[in-house]
Amino acid sequence: MSVLFENLTLIGLGHEGSSIAWAAKRGGLAGRITGHARTEATRARAQELGFVDRACETAAEAAEGADLVILCVPVGACGDVAAEIAPRLKSGAILSDIGSVKAQLIADVAPHVPDGTDFVPAHPLAGTEHSGPESGFAELFDNRWCILTPLAGSRPEAVDRMQAFWEGLGANVDRMDPAHHDLVLAVTSHVPHAIAYTMVGVADHLRRVTDSEVIKFSAAGFRDFTRIAASDPTMWRDVFLNNRDAVLDILGRFSEELSLLQRAIRMGDGDYLHEYFTHTRAIRRGIIEAGQDTDAPDFGRHAAPAKDPDE
Amino acid sequence: MSVLFENLTLIGLGHEGSSIAWAAKRGGLAGRITGHARTEATRARAQELGFVDRACETAAEAAEGADLVILCVPVGACGDVAAEIAPRLKSGAILSDIGSVKAQLIADVAPHVPDGTDFVPAHPLAGTEHSGPESGFAELFDNRWCILTPLAGSRPEAVDRMQAFWEGLGANVDRMDPAHHDLVLAVTSHVPHAIAYTMVGVADHLRRVTDSEVIKFSAAGFRDFTRIAASDPTMWRDVFLNNRDAVLDILGRFSEELSLLQRAIRMGDGDYLHEYFTHTRAIRRGIIEAGQDTDAPDFGRHAAPAKDPDE
Repeated sequence: MSVLFENLTLIGLGHEGSSIAWAAKRGGLAGRITGHARTEATRARAQELGFVDRACETAAEAAEGADLVILCVPVGACGDVAAEIAPRLKSGAILSDIGSVKAQLIADVAPHVPDGTDFVPAHPLAGTEHSGPESGFAELFDNRWCILTPLAGSRPEAVDRMQAFWEGLGANVDRMDPAHHDLVLAVTSHVPHAIAYTMVGVADHLRRVTDSEVIKFSAAGFRDFTRIAASDPTMWRDVFLNNRDAVLDILGRFSEELSLLQRAIRMGDGDYLHEYFTHTRAIRRGIIEAGQDTDAPDFGRHAAPAKDPDE
Repeated sequence: MSVLFENLTLIGLGHEGSSIAWAAKRGGLAGRITGHARTEATRARAQELGFVDRACETAAEAAEGADLVILCVPVGACGDVAAEIAPRLKSGAILSDIGSVKAQLIADVAPHVPDGTDFVPAHPLAGTEHSGPESGFAELFDNRWCILTPLAGSRPEAVDRMQAFWEGLGANVDRMDPAHHDLVLAVTSHVPHAIAYTMVGVADHLRRVTDSEVIKFSAAGFRDFTRIAASDPTMWRDVFLNNRDAVLDILGRFSEELSLLQRAIRMGDGDYLHEYFTHTRAIRRGIIEAGQDTDAPDFGRHAAPAKDPDE
């Protein structure tokens, strides 16, 4: 890989920011990496770990002279940060982000972007339940998707450079209209998270079933929900507040479908249930055939199925 | 291990039946294994694969002379099979099952159990999305839970022998009241499955998002739902029909909680969302601390986090 950006600046040095830095180093994509984090502790830790060459006290200082600035802060914070750094962005710089919601984030950030600077929004579909500068690793984006949602006015060469950058970080890149991105993610990620959070909440409120029983028998299906529901609360608050319309649309559809299933259970309608479950099983098969997963009993997580921890 | 049952009979030779046979062979728990499956093809396959010594055309014939008979058929079929084999059960025999629902199954089966025979219901919390006699393997139950729900009149020595049998198959054994079992499983397994099935159904009906997009970006959370929703339709139909009251109770609570979350999203109540997500994250931590899972980014599925396929 060759250096794509002489000066790369990361605003936010948590899980994603540190992973981008490590992956950029691995790929030799950046000449120099500058970072900013709000707390002195995180800045010090980032320098100790060595994934930034320099850590600045303010976002504005970090953005000065950068060829690429990536906002790695929660969606709800991007507008304010953009306003702060905008006056310091040099002509020809690219501004990007990693937000899980695009339309609202673009509405918050784009007005601040100065002429001569390209804003190229991006959303890498990667991450774990972990946070903090210690949790990043260079391989986080390998073979994951990164979705670019270029604006109507973006220069094609800026978008192409961002695509090359994300490919250099290991990701597969797709491009989408921002509103469509938000709908796709509402279906594949945001509403599944809302549901998982809710189911975990239900289990906890049900005092007839003890916490220890919920925990002990969680492998029976519930554990996948707790896993989804363990993600960063601030990030997810911002996702739901900023992708409200698409999330409420999909949640409404979900409630309607669930009511039908609930009614079939109440009425003892076995044919409806069997047909519904047969249909959803076929969707799972589609995912396996599309190569997104394996049909091994452990879904490819182990060489031998015997040790699969999931039911 | 020593032989616990000279003659073991398995009614149903699918995923669970074949796994019990392999695990019993591994542990040397049974002198001789007899099986019954409805189709000639399955009976022939079971003998070819070698996990039964003999495969009978009727359940009654297979049960004749057995020391332990395990019903490995869907919950809804257990009553009829029990009625068929009851006259052939020898005095001192133990009858058991593997059903995911206990109270209704006991109501269906217990009336047929003759005097001198002990019915000891069991539910191993193991299984994959796969089915058929080829899909079984000896390690399926290793370190999984098996819940026994003994009846008031069960002889303690029969229950103890069933516990020894399941421990011999590799499982950890717990005992529970049948109704409590059904509530615990409604929370940890049945309702999570109902929800996962529903979410997969919603994604499929939403034509603005193409199937290929749903599949392509399923790793963002949705894939865990498709995984859960891929299980056997007949088994799950029977689970919902037979554990109706507990499932409807928990589904009702779930809908109420989801309405609150939905309202908070609509009203833009960020504090509510943040607090809710912080709380559910703590529950996840509880599961990790209880040793049911690991806090590695990939949940212990890989040695290196880099290749974790899950977000």
